[in-house]
Amino acid sequence: MRFNISSLILLQGSLVLAANSQPSTWRDIAAERQQYRDASISRISPRIPNVNTATLPLDVLNTARSMLTRREVYITEMTTIELLDQLATGKLTSVEVTNAFLRRAGVAQKLVNCITEVLPERALEQARALDDYYRKNKKPIGPFHGLPVSLKEHVGIKGLDLNGGYSSNVGNISPIDNKLVEILRNAGAVFHARTTEPQSLMQLETTNQLYGTTLNPFNRNLTCGGSSGGEGALMGIRGSSIGIGSDIGGSIRVPSGNNGLYGLKPTPKRIPVGMISAIQESEGVEGTLGPISTSLEGLSLFMSTILAAEPWVEDLSVFPIPWRKETHFPTDASGKPRKIRVGVMRWDGVVMPHPPVTRAINEVVAKLKEHGDQFEIVDWVQEGAAKAWDTIAALYFADGATGIHGELAKTGEPILPLTEWVITQATTPKPPGFNIQGLWEFKDRAGDFKRSYSAQWRAAGIDVLLTPVGPGVAPQHGTSKYWSYTSMFNLIDYPAAVFPVSKVDERDNGVWNYVPTGEQDKVNKKRWDVNAFMGAPISLQLVAKRFEDEKVGRRELNSCFI
Amino acid sequence: MRFNISSLILLQGSLVLAANSQPSTWRDIAAERQQYRDASISRISPRIPNVNTATLPLDVLNTARSMLTRREVYITEMTTIELLDQLATGKLTSVEVTNAFLRRAGVAQKLVNCITEVLPERALEQARALDDYYRKNKKPIGPFHGLPVSLKEHVGIKGLDLNGGYSSNVGNISPIDNKLVEILRNAGAVFHARTTEPQSLMQLETTNQLYGTTLNPFNRNLTCGGSSGGEGALMGIRGSSIGIGSDIGGSIRVPSGNNGLYGLKPTPKRIPVGMISAIQESEGVEGTLGPISTSLEGLSLFMSTILAAEPWVEDLSVFPIPWRKETHFPTDASGKPRKIRVGVMRWDGVVMPHPPVTRAINEVVAKLKEHGDQFEIVDWVQEGAAKAWDTIAALYFADGATGIHGELAKTGEPILPLTEWVITQATTPKPPGFNIQGLWEFKDRAGDFKRSYSAQWRAAGIDVLLTPVGPGVAPQHGTSKYWSYTSMFNLIDYPAAVFPVSKVDERDNGVWNYVPTGEQDKVNKKRWDVNAFMGAPISLQLVAKRFEDEKVGRRELNSCFI
Repeated sequence: MRFNISSLILLQGSLVLAANSQPSTWRDIAAERQQYRDASISRISPRIPNVNTATLPLDVLNTARSMLTRREVYITEMTTIELLDQLATGKLTSVEVTNAFLRRAGVAQKLVNCITEVLPERALEQARALDDYYRKNKKPIGPFHGLPVSLKEHVGIKGLDLNGGYSSNVGNISPIDNKLVEILRNAGAVFHARTTEPQSLMQLETTNQLYGTTLNPFNRNLTCGGSSGGEGALMGIRGSSIGIGSDIGGSIRVPSGNNGLYGLKPTPKRIPVGMISAIQESEGVEGTLGPISTSLEGLSLFMSTILAAEPWVEDLSVFPIPWRKETHFPTDASGKPRKIRVGVMRWDGVVMPHPPVTRAINEVVAKLKEHGDQFEIVDWVQEGAAKAWDTIAALYFADGATGIHGELAKTGEPILPLTEWVITQATTPKPPGFNIQGLWEFKDRAGDFKRSYSAQWRAAGIDVLLTPVGPGVAPQHGTSKYWSYTSMFNLIDYPAAVFPVSKVDERDNGVWNYVPTGEQDKVNKKRWDVNAFMGAPISLQLVAKRFEDEKVGRRELNSCFI
Repeated sequence: MRFNISSLILLQGSLVLAANSQPSTWRDIAAERQQYRDASISRISPRIPNVNTATLPLDVLNTARSMLTRREVYITEMTTIELLDQLATGKLTSVEVTNAFLRRAGVAQKLVNCITEVLPERALEQARALDDYYRKNKKPIGPFHGLPVSLKEHVGIKGLDLNGGYSSNVGNISPIDNKLVEILRNAGAVFHARTTEPQSLMQLETTNQLYGTTLNPFNRNLTCGGSSGGEGALMGIRGSSIGIGSDIGGSIRVPSGNNGLYGLKPTPKRIPVGMISAIQESEGVEGTLGPISTSLEGLSLFMSTILAAEPWVEDLSVFPIPWRKETHFPTDASGKPRKIRVGVMRWDGVVMPHPPVTRAINEVVAKLKEHGDQFEIVDWVQEGAAKAWDTIAALYFADGATGIHGELAKTGEPILPLTEWVITQATTPKPPGFNIQGLWEFKDRAGDFKRSYSAQWRAAGIDVLLTPVGPGVAPQHGTSKYWSYTSMFNLIDYPAAVFPVSKVDERDNGVWNYVPTGEQDKVNKKRWDVNAFMGAPISLQLVAKRFEDEKVGRRELNSCFI
């Protein structure tokens, strides 16, 4: 059992259990949490009216706008860099910006249920202090000066509940800030909202027994994705400009893709970890924190700010590699950049993505070909994707999901269908999990896949790889059961960024003659119906070799893609 | 079972089994290997006479000299840098240097039994090609131009046997060069000798069932150390100037210390791995290759040459961190270097080192105090050393040593006492090894030790840590059963270099009033007898934080210690 007080202590410092906690059922705990959340939202000023969700349209972006002042809409719809520029030049105060994002986050909660709590008092106190600093010093305190930042709940804040989506952990108070929180706060960030995550954190959707289901603001019939789904939905609706998620199978990238956002899963251990999770020690697969943003520049700003703080000095698990300015793209003999070779994976060889994804790939490839002086396209044929999934699904739950079962048992919290599904994959061991021989068999498979990927990459001579984010756009609720497009890059530790390309519209309403090659492929094809996905963002993924995060996370390097 | 053909393939490429191999007992295999070795030595020119080992003195350094020409002695006793300088300026040819080292390696074999094979034909062919290159281009081919380099046997060379000290693996032919071999050869290295290693590679001495025991050239009653003991003995006798060893518990540092050499265990994965071992996948403890040299400069030359080849481009397991020129030592506000804070660990809290080690620490500390403008001394009180050993001993053999037993069973090779000893530590699991819960318990312990070490290091504010290499100088044969002084730094992944300080002499012949604190301490004290260790080199260890290999591996940074 990995998700207990002692493992929390290791990761976040020593936790303090609420002194007067007494045995409660998971239902009581959930009711208390929702009340706590609603109370926090009721303290946003001006107060946000209630919404009759029964009469809402599927796409609630305009509903959100209609609930805000024009000034609030103006502020919250700027790019991250515009916002920071206006804050850094004194054109906007942090108090005004924070209030605007608090308001929009409160609206987001009413519309798509993405918040665990907003932090009006803490955030505004911080914002006032930053405005004071600016008045006195005539300059910003750091690169995040005055900017509201949201956090997936399991990225801890000192003095606040830290439960990782389990009712059993409600009442655990984080004694310290997560390291990234500390660094960003020192750089001027204002933390205004904490967001939902699914039970077990091992879903590509966001449903838990504390808060229910988080919805997709572009189409409430679709999932916001997961596990950083609260971040995805909140930023999709523009209630935050940049936030922190985590990813061990797609949990940053899928919500980014489902909500038309930019998201980066860094190479694990390039930035400090420290989030909590019931599968913290999944063997041979490493989770990582990372940024989600409404702007591409947000990703690079986040990474450069974190690494400028040299987190490796204190945390020896972090690689001492700064956010590098050099391009990492090869040059010819004269030192001039040569053409960038872009691998294109149209499908993973198992499940063909829905037509909008293929359209997006075609659009990006066409754009790259327009710039044929800069880019060269290389077809990438993916081998072994099914085996890669079998491998990672086994390694995620090397303990046979004993940790997850143990957490749920503490309060009698019922397991949710997508949690149940993911811990009962063909190769996942039964409790109590692997013996060493079983573990090594799957670790060997992981090693084989890593080596063959790297060899294929070298043979192809590519610099980056363009791929789908999943087998379609944001799926309908409860159907996100194909992780391969994102999880294969967790298995091999490659960094990957997601970026929006288009939205589902009438162009995708043609005949799809594709003949499925297998069972999962058939299931996925059957789910395609243009009307079900209308309006959903279409996103793609750009992958680089391990440690080459800069190739996919910096505007200068990938502006032709993203 | 980890040490099989398939795991070899992963590490070294696909191995080719000798076509006409047929079942043999381990005794036949050993006889064949010794014959093969002797035949290789008989091809050194001029031929090396046999030695009557019964009449040899304990210290065979002068015996070795007496068996060589004055010119051969002159060449083989230069420092690595002098040699390279003379090769790079054409004052010496590679052929002459190679012949001299081949001769001295052959002599070393007769005196201390440290060789598995010499490579006169291959080495001289390479040397001739390098000399040709020099004549044509008037410049060296690379930083190792023409320099003979020795290799621990399990660092593979294309086309040669690769057995890792097990009779069962004799006949495996390496299809490729180890990556370090490839890089060094491109840099001009000439591989002239391959050296012995102990059964299982998990001894701090060097005895196996193929070649018997390798002796210490300073005192044949003492062990050369292990597991890179052939390297240690060969370089101790000056039959090589620089070589490659491997270290997962002290296997580079202990032979370096026992033979008065410089050795560096880098941070694992700063350079490519790729050696073979029956405990390749020891859980939570990573082995690494690294240099042993007769000169401090050899360590830095090795690391800078390997990292200049950017091995991380091909092998994504290697950190993309160049050999950094900056000092890593903190500076004061004005940018000037501040005093270097040196932690001093006089003992590990469990076993007090013999008087010569304490004398060496006192000598180095006194020297540092003489340079009080540059150095500050901080006492380091080691906590948890016993628990650290219990942890690493369990993690080494997570499979209950199934891999080792399986290898031995193949040919009926009897287990040796030090192999048996190390796989039956109190915490080592019985076959078939850990279940996941057992494994995680010990991985958690390792994590705790890492975190507490790093916290203590930060609290002490030290830059480097000076420690013993072991509980005494080179032990008597069969008694090397205390790994803590080296293995604790494997558990926490800190780089560590070993350097010679003095030799045991009459100064160490005083009364030792120390009162032992426990059983191991008592055993170690009882072993002390100045006469038994007379002439043995006394060495110390300098440790830096993870990734800060440059602090202990570069002359500019540590010249006041080393």
